[in-house]
Amino acid sequence: MSKQIAIVGLGLIGGSIAMALQGFEDYEIVGVDVSQPTLRFAAEHHVADRVTDDAAGAIAQAEVVFLCLHPQGIVDFLQRHRDGFKPGALVTDVCGVKTAIVRAARVLPPEVDFIGGHPMAGTEFSGVQNALKDMFRGAHYIMVPDESSDPDKVALLERMAVYMGCRDVVRTTPEQHDAIIAYTSQMMHVIAVSVCDDPKLFEFMGFEGDSFRGCTRVAALDVPLWTQLFSLNAPQLDQALERLEQNINAYRQVLRSGDRKALAEKLEWSASRKRQMNRHEQEVQA
Amino acid sequence: MSKQIAIVGLGLIGGSIAMALQGFEDYEIVGVDVSQPTLRFAAEHHVADRVTDDAAGAIAQAEVVFLCLHPQGIVDFLQRHRDGFKPGALVTDVCGVKTAIVRAARVLPPEVDFIGGHPMAGTEFSGVQNALKDMFRGAHYIMVPDESSDPDKVALLERMAVYMGCRDVVRTTPEQHDAIIAYTSQMMHVIAVSVCDDPKLFEFMGFEGDSFRGCTRVAALDVPLWTQLFSLNAPQLDQALERLEQNINAYRQVLRSGDRKALAEKLEWSASRKRQMNRHEQEVQA
Repeated sequence: MSKQIAIVGLGLIGGSIAMALQGFEDYEIVGVDVSQPTLRFAAEHHVADRVTDDAAGAIAQAEVVFLCLHPQGIVDFLQRHRDGFKPGALVTDVCGVKTAIVRAARVLPPEVDFIGGHPMAGTEFSGVQNALKDMFRGAHYIMVPDESSDPDKVALLERMAVYMGCRDVVRTTPEQHDAIIAYTSQMMHVIAVSVCDDPKLFEFMGFEGDSFRGCTRVAALDVPLWTQLFSLNAPQLDQALERLEQNINAYRQVLRSGDRKALAEKLEWSASRKRQMNRHEQEVQA
Repeated sequence: MSKQIAIVGLGLIGGSIAMALQGFEDYEIVGVDVSQPTLRFAAEHHVADRVTDDAAGAIAQAEVVFLCLHPQGIVDFLQRHRDGFKPGALVTDVCGVKTAIVRAARVLPPEVDFIGGHPMAGTEFSGVQNALKDMFRGAHYIMVPDESSDPDKVALLERMAVYMGCRDVVRTTPEQHDAIIAYTSQMMHVIAVSVCDDPKLFEFMGFEGDSFRGCTRVAALDVPLWTQLFSLNAPQLDQALERLEQNINAYRQVLRSGDRKALAEKLEWSASRKRQMNRHEQEVQA
């Protein structure tokens, strides 16, 4: 019998992982969900090698378990199935906050290795019907092992991330992850929804270009998911937003001053930071 | 002899228009620039049917002139060549502000028809080497004719926009254009540079996903161009940024309150506005 990877929760991310991991080494990919329409869709579209609604049965057999539920769903699942994982298994998750999840995983027995993860990919859509085999191509895969993590399990998670097409695997701590993600991801979502809150939004349709589309794409977000992600990281997100407000305000000051030279210098400073970042990205990808 | 369209300024936008207009009706496309390397590149890559550094000669022959310079460059060109356009010509521009340009175009004699334009397309790059034939595919083309504009010229500009691949042509006034663009375009650029001003930018590299890339792409902007665009529209831009600050602040309030239900309701409100906008776009494109 082949080894098994159970993907619990065949939503946008779980479905995409199941698709991306097919053929990985000698593992069979088992998709788990509570929704019969989701399982039917997944079976018909071969999202996984096999699908089931029997979570307990699947995780009892699996060498690797990916928890791809909403944050509270992961916390609840870990609590309910704490003694149901196969001894020696690697259990991981894909949640956009890590401190709360790693804390919740402390309920697991010592013979199960939990390593939190966060593939930095997604779209503004949700559900298995929007899953993509190539979702992770070029994405960063963040993982938060700790000193007790089995190096073989860390290496296995890295190989899976590479197999999915990720550009690199970045290691950090749960606390550092949450501080960073407040800025690089959560803040982008608050910006997008705040732009769409403008009373002129509909009046001004027909005048948007790609800068508008790029900034607001993620505003059509999965509300229950992002409510949880924001709430579980609210102080960090608030700090990132405070820095943003200060930076926007500095632009407003120089705009109001009418000093074109100062505006040009300020824009040059910001633009050169972005160009430096682009160069770094190109070097990493080259 | 065929009719001529002169494209003055073979930068990112001018070069793209020259490429996109080739084959339009019975017009020859004449590219005009002061830079010999630009003209050489344009000739080698067939950016236009013909290129020249003789602006005066080109506009004296052209039935249509596109001014594709930076805002101040357009103002200066109109002043210098006010009596040099072919009588009966359509003169237009592609500048991201319209009030200042339309005002500057009042120097033209009555036998020349100036209709301001703004194709809502571009990239964060500049120069003819980054021009793209498909730059305008799916873009809005905004024009600001007035009551004195010749309907035949308006129709000609519309046909050219459609030929370039634009999804639609939107008519408005210069003042309304500038108020709207402050929000849909200029504000997106201030957001992008403000995000890149964060002191944590480089420290947090490796943790960015597509939401970050989408929001900050335009931060690597053409500094002299955007200094002029922002300066020529500063009060409108400042107002748009003030509304944004209020909307971000409203999110900070509810985040700090810890009221998850209120946060979910607020997110649902914003996300539904974006979804409504997406549906409208799909209907327009269908």
